[in-house]
Amino acid sequence: MDVITPERLSLNTATTRAQWTLDKAIDGAARHGFGGVSPWRDQLQALGVEKAARQISEAGLAVSGLCRGGWYTAEGALTQTVIDDNRRAVDEAAAIGAACLVMVVGGLAPRSRDLEGARAMIEEGLATTLDYAKTAGVKIAIEPLHPMYAADRAAVNTMAQALDICDRLGDGIGLAADVYHIWWDPDVKAQIARAGKERLLAFHLCDWLVPTTDMLNDRGMMGDGVIDIPDLRQAVEAEGFAGLNEVEIFSAENWWKRDPDDVLETIIARAAGWC
Amino acid sequence: MDVITPERLSLNTATTRAQWTLDKAIDGAARHGFGGVSPWRDQLQALGVEKAARQISEAGLAVSGLCRGGWYTAEGALTQTVIDDNRRAVDEAAAIGAACLVMVVGGLAPRSRDLEGARAMIEEGLATTLDYAKTAGVKIAIEPLHPMYAADRAAVNTMAQALDICDRLGDGIGLAADVYHIWWDPDVKAQIARAGKERLLAFHLCDWLVPTTDMLNDRGMMGDGVIDIPDLRQAVEAEGFAGLNEVEIFSAENWWKRDPDDVLETIIARAAGWC
Repeated sequence: MDVITPERLSLNTATTRAQWTLDKAIDGAARHGFGGVSPWRDQLQALGVEKAARQISEAGLAVSGLCRGGWYTAEGALTQTVIDDNRRAVDEAAAIGAACLVMVVGGLAPRSRDLEGARAMIEEGLATTLDYAKTAGVKIAIEPLHPMYAADRAAVNTMAQALDICDRLGDGIGLAADVYHIWWDPDVKAQIARAGKERLLAFHLCDWLVPTTDMLNDRGMMGDGVIDIPDLRQAVEAEGFAGLNEVEIFSAENWWKRDPDDVLETIIARAAGWC
Repeated sequence: MDVITPERLSLNTATTRAQWTLDKAIDGAARHGFGGVSPWRDQLQALGVEKAARQISEAGLAVSGLCRGGWYTAEGALTQTVIDDNRRAVDEAAAIGAACLVMVVGGLAPRSRDLEGARAMIEEGLATTLDYAKTAGVKIAIEPLHPMYAADRAAVNTMAQALDICDRLGDGIGLAADVYHIWWDPDVKAQIARAGKERLLAFHLCDWLVPTTDMLNDRGMMGDGVIDIPDLRQAVEAEGFAGLNEVEIFSAENWWKRDPDDVLETIIARAAGWC
């Protein structure tokens, strides 16, 4: 397996969101020799989609994904507002040439315990967005989130579940495989193989810390936790995945408090030395 | 589905561990009309196994389980110390007439990222304990723990994974199904059906709070969270499960700070009114 060189890395802008606005993150990624970025929509809209697209292009960076569409359950029904917001996300992904639109699909509807109902709503929403995304040439990447987010962020919680949805919805939809969300799954290798190259649309890196002190914002730098990242990278690359290794670290008490140039240098060192 | 009356409830003594030693918990469960208790080993040993057995029997209570054996990975190898401790757990379960010995199997070995290796060690350990448990007439209940505990508490994280182990190990071993650990699983209903009456050895109740502020000690009282408990109870009872509904609430900032008699009254009310 090849060592990950900087040009094989993508900076998910969540990793430096406390320090850098999107223009600075694009500039930082380019300065450090990263091959790409993956912006978040709030940052993208703050900078302006066209302006961001131009800056990314001029910096010679790829876009490994746009974070994020989804949240189909947010209003308790699949409203036009939710559908329209996902269409805008598709348009934004197209405008910046994103390899995929990453979907955080939403958890339970407000004041509901109906998990099966939420999952049905999510699948209907994904079908709607997929129809539009095909016309725009944008690939949809369902991100199965760790089961600890089933209630409040995403009710798609395993690769198997996401692939079952992909099977039903057909072409143009696949997965964003984030090691943080999938590493624990006894079925992870089998599902990576099942996904195959066509449906492995993104590969996200960070680490699971022991202990984890916050369920949302205590992710680790690769190598500081317990995930066997090389093992998972080997599995996705064995399927032919050739996208960038996207680094996405939510870390309120550690990495978000550091000099962002040091964060990027650390990412480069860990990617080369461990991942 | 019948309403849960107090005699259909078991008090897992973790629920009142901040307030009551085991003798007080036994007395409290009996006073409130519960049908059983489920002690933790540290409390059992503090009271004395024989003394506890006598008190439980005199109070007319059943024992829905003993918490807990397992932790096969604690020493990085399946040592005699670990095996012996599990034999003692079996002996204790037999002495108090527990319906099963609940297994929290252990997570990754210390300083290890080898999840598959941990799982192999766990299965070997379970096989060893099962051999002994059969001679003692004690049933072994694997408790699949929520995937957020895969690293540090239990690397058996789904019912399917636990049942695969049961399939390989044969008779005398089944599951403790705790709604907190399994509610998110898209496969939960299918796996409850697969388990069947013979392998559904315990059914644990509490709730998943939104937000959850602590990964270990912020479980909710039934009805305060998002788990559709009646739906899961119906599924296990449809398989013929006729054991007690064991209530196990780890709650450092809420229920552990309350008058334990009020806690038991609340359990009775919620069990009757919602579960």
